[in-house]
Amino acid sequence: MSEGREPATERVIESKRIFEGSICALRVDTVMLDSGRTATREIVEHDPVVAMVPVEADGTVVLIRQFRLATGEVMLEIPAGIVDPGEDKAAAAQRELREETGLRAEKLTQLGEFFASPGFLTELMTIFLAEGLEPAPLDADEDEDIVVQRVTLGEAVRLVEAGEIKDAKSVAGILLAARRLLA
Amino acid sequence: MSEGREPATERVIESKRIFEGSICALRVDTVMLDSGRTATREIVEHDPVVAMVPVEADGTVVLIRQFRLATGEVMLEIPAGIVDPGEDKAAAAQRELREETGLRAEKLTQLGEFFASPGFLTELMTIFLAEGLEPAPLDADEDEDIVVQRVTLGEAVRLVEAGEIKDAKSVAGILLAARRLLA
Repeated sequence: MSEGREPATERVIESKRIFEGSICALRVDTVMLDSGRTATREIVEHDPVVAMVPVEADGTVVLIRQFRLATGEVMLEIPAGIVDPGEDKAAAAQRELREETGLRAEKLTQLGEFFASPGFLTELMTIFLAEGLEPAPLDADEDEDIVVQRVTLGEAVRLVEAGEIKDAKSVAGILLAARRLLA
Repeated sequence: MSEGREPATERVIESKRIFEGSICALRVDTVMLDSGRTATREIVEHDPVVAMVPVEADGTVVLIRQFRLATGEVMLEIPAGIVDPGEDKAAAAQRELREETGLRAEKLTQLGEFFASPGFLTELMTIFLAEGLEPAPLDADEDEDIVVQRVTLGEAVRLVEAGEIKDAKSVAGILLAARRLLA
């Protein structure tokens, strides 16, 4: 816990692939530390995702509700989805926005980019502010059941602070949008 | 993408455990959808984590830098760690704060709680504001090399907005702390 120096990096000396799934993969790496000791790192690989804070002309935010098996509950989130291999992030954002909310954005502005859980997960999340919204529905993923819920941006911030929006990308995205739009 | 109704839930009809690691586990569930179709869900299980925004009396925030193999880079983050089985979250926060920064907090206030990536990951993150800091070091995890970096809260917000802090819990935690302390 010293200050002012560079933390040591880790060199992978062995990597074992455990699982290759359709949305994630898992490997177990053995790393060599600066001390000469070795350590094991469980790493989950996940493709990058895009998420959007869609804000209508009157300031309304378009959120979605869906059941999430991993959390066991229906969650209120900003629209999001996995970037297809080779797909441009802005194109992925438009596609997911059309599939999940039926809207296309005239203007996308990047609000932030961060890793979901850098201790073990490769998933990178890019958040866009989506403005100039107009109807342009695309067929939704038939494995998902998504319900749109509109709230004001101020109400979205209140839902974040009250713990009713409890999804990391949504918390970060809504607070970043509020800093920009509710000055 | 209709509005005003409840999204359908999913019923697990088969669950296959693929991996049991020391920090995560992986299962593949088959679920029955409302439509009568079935779908596959890859679910990564991870214990809950706590993270702290430690703010000193003069408004300085205590951040940490460490190499993250999953992202391949040294990252600037708020202190955090996994809650041990049966451990109280506030106790886990104090333990991790002492291990990673050498400080104990007289006062912990919950700022937020959210899932890191609810589409496939069970990891729940609880964020505390840590105030009334005083030296009380605990031995650090010998597998980790952590360097402390102090910045003002205003500078932390700038680092978030500039994309130099790119960790979901740190982005959310710093913005929640700023809403409370920089009114």
